[in-house]
Amino acid sequence: MYPNILRHPGPTPIPKKVELAMAENMISHRSEEFVKLYRETTERVKPIFGTKQEILLLPSGGTAALEAAVVNTVSPGEEVVVVTVGAFGDYFVSICEKNGLVVHKLEKEWGEACTKEELADFLKPLSNIKAVFATYNETSTGILNPVWELAEAVKEHSDAIFIVDGVSGIGGVPAEMDEWGIDILVTGSQKAMMLPPGLSIVAVNEKAWKVIEANRSTAYYLDLLSYRDWAEKGMTPNTPAVSLIMGLSAVCDLIEEEGGISKTAERHEVMKNMVRAAMNALNIELLTDDEYASPTITAIRTPKSLDLAEYLRHLKKKYHLDFAGGLGRLQGKIFRFGHMGYCFPSDILQAVSLMEAGLQDFAYSFEPGAGVRAAQDVYLASLRK
Amino acid sequence: MYPNILRHPGPTPIPKKVELAMAENMISHRSEEFVKLYRETTERVKPIFGTKQEILLLPSGGTAALEAAVVNTVSPGEEVVVVTVGAFGDYFVSICEKNGLVVHKLEKEWGEACTKEELADFLKPLSNIKAVFATYNETSTGILNPVWELAEAVKEHSDAIFIVDGVSGIGGVPAEMDEWGIDILVTGSQKAMMLPPGLSIVAVNEKAWKVIEANRSTAYYLDLLSYRDWAEKGMTPNTPAVSLIMGLSAVCDLIEEEGGISKTAERHEVMKNMVRAAMNALNIELLTDDEYASPTITAIRTPKSLDLAEYLRHLKKKYHLDFAGGLGRLQGKIFRFGHMGYCFPSDILQAVSLMEAGLQDFAYSFEPGAGVRAAQDVYLASLRK
Repeated sequence: MYPNILRHPGPTPIPKKVELAMAENMISHRSEEFVKLYRETTERVKPIFGTKQEILLLPSGGTAALEAAVVNTVSPGEEVVVVTVGAFGDYFVSICEKNGLVVHKLEKEWGEACTKEELADFLKPLSNIKAVFATYNETSTGILNPVWELAEAVKEHSDAIFIVDGVSGIGGVPAEMDEWGIDILVTGSQKAMMLPPGLSIVAVNEKAWKVIEANRSTAYYLDLLSYRDWAEKGMTPNTPAVSLIMGLSAVCDLIEEEGGISKTAERHEVMKNMVRAAMNALNIELLTDDEYASPTITAIRTPKSLDLAEYLRHLKKKYHLDFAGGLGRLQGKIFRFGHMGYCFPSDILQAVSLMEAGLQDFAYSFEPGAGVRAAQDVYLASLRK
Repeated sequence: MYPNILRHPGPTPIPKKVELAMAENMISHRSEEFVKLYRETTERVKPIFGTKQEILLLPSGGTAALEAAVVNTVSPGEEVVVVTVGAFGDYFVSICEKNGLVVHKLEKEWGEACTKEELADFLKPLSNIKAVFATYNETSTGILNPVWELAEAVKEHSDAIFIVDGVSGIGGVPAEMDEWGIDILVTGSQKAMMLPPGLSIVAVNEKAWKVIEANRSTAYYLDLLSYRDWAEKGMTPNTPAVSLIMGLSAVCDLIEEEGGISKTAERHEVMKNMVRAAMNALNIELLTDDEYASPTITAIRTPKSLDLAEYLRHLKKKYHLDFAGGLGRLQGKIFRFGHMGYCFPSDILQAVSLMEAGLQDFAYSFEPGAGVRAAQDVYLASLRK
């Protein structure tokens, strides 16, 4: 009866409008109806990526799209740089290593971002780097890497292409792929894009296409050239995730209704600030500094004196509030408050209220209401702008 | 307003119960709820595959699962045999060749099946074959290969593993993976499995797992070992297609409600016979003989004197009846009447009636009602059994 309040970094809640769109009558992926759906929808995704490039839709999770970016551009034995600031950067390293690449790892403390200067210094002594990879929004730590600056460092200090994992950011944060000079940008459906998992979205610019054309990949399912060829006909090389594409069209409706992606990104910025203000008011520490804090997910340190696992279990069991724990080396040290996609300031007020109720149950020392009040202040200030 | 009557070989219509299941509240793929869903659902899929092996669920189209079967078991430069009786056999050849395998192609006329003797004769002079691939239900021609016999030929004449593409069959035809000796069996969601595209289902037996463990694959997303490891925990290595798995659970409900997969397969057998009887009564030729005719899809030759493309366009435009055309070398020569998944004898009567209406519009010479009557006779006889 009680709905689970899913405040995870993905999968995230699905809007009713999207659920209904996905329940539309099935159509053939070789029909005129599909071509129209595909063309219109990919066109409408372009502003969300900040690109004029063709949008490719793969019937797969985000991991497959990241692997596609790797195997289509770099061959075994070639050198790449991976900027890793958390678990998903490390994940990228694993994908590269499994595929036989020589990986130079620019590793940061978990909770920190990578700056332009750091990447520039790292690239200077290296030659022969074919590609530089970075995570835009690191889901494990709640960090937004300044990829617009990292792109500059890549251009200034190498001929490499710059590949960005946008999985938990795109749809909730600003993205200007073309302007910033990202060569391949990838995201998945189940995070800020408000869809169930199973669709990945990829954009590739001319520089990267040249690399892909020159590179000999053995991948069949993940062959981006075949996706490009078929996209010209408004179709995909194999059966696409038709219902998710119907849902994606509804997602575009919602974002356009809100006033476009810049407005949607503003809402995420407000939610980020609400969560951060609330935690400060509750004397609960955040993992990251404000400067590079993610607009879609906040990593929160264990409230003092609490058993984190017990607190999270309690919140879920008694209040149906479902947060995600820490990943890897941060397991047991932080929890993650997802505020992406179909999530609103009212949801932040709700979650903070329930967090406070749970803190009272654990006799945590704080002024009840302080967190909610701080979040409200941020919200109200944003409305007065 | 008028619903499109989708009589394609996939994607196929989605049952309302499945649509609603897929619209359930999203859950985390690392939650207890998911583990329960995953464990129960994969257990219930086993009878549909005729296996006691673990069922693996990949968030991908069927093509990716076919490629997974290839890249996990065979390394570049190694030799395989591909039995191809149509477009999807050829597709398998392409996947193998792109991945650098040496392919021995056992090619049959489109519209014919491959027999045990033919495969045995083909295998005898070959040594060093690592894997034999065959399509169970060839969607392009409406042929059901006797894979139970082909499996015997593989065991008798090689040490190879036997990999079967079950994509448009499984869920609508008998499958006894363990009893027949299929080592890897693969299917997709959007055909007889009554789901939207985007989920593939794979089962692997002990013999094939040994080959996979010994084989060094560079695939990350399609690494079957990682799926096996995570399946032990009731999870998947990366974000699964959660909503499709919710839908798969509802599909299992429906098949169990019908009396189990053997009853579901009987219904498909009746529909096949209805379509074939109707076409015979209308003097419209079938591509295949009865012996190996597919229970899920029938390939029908162009009715005499008709312009096929014009007839199909007319059926869709005037009667909203949507058939699939021919693929590859059969384009313009046949059309394909899909009767798989959420399709019932009543749907066959409807489609044959509308086909007859269309034939009258084209002044085709036939006895109106003859096709429907013949289909009814088959249907009524099946009910009397």
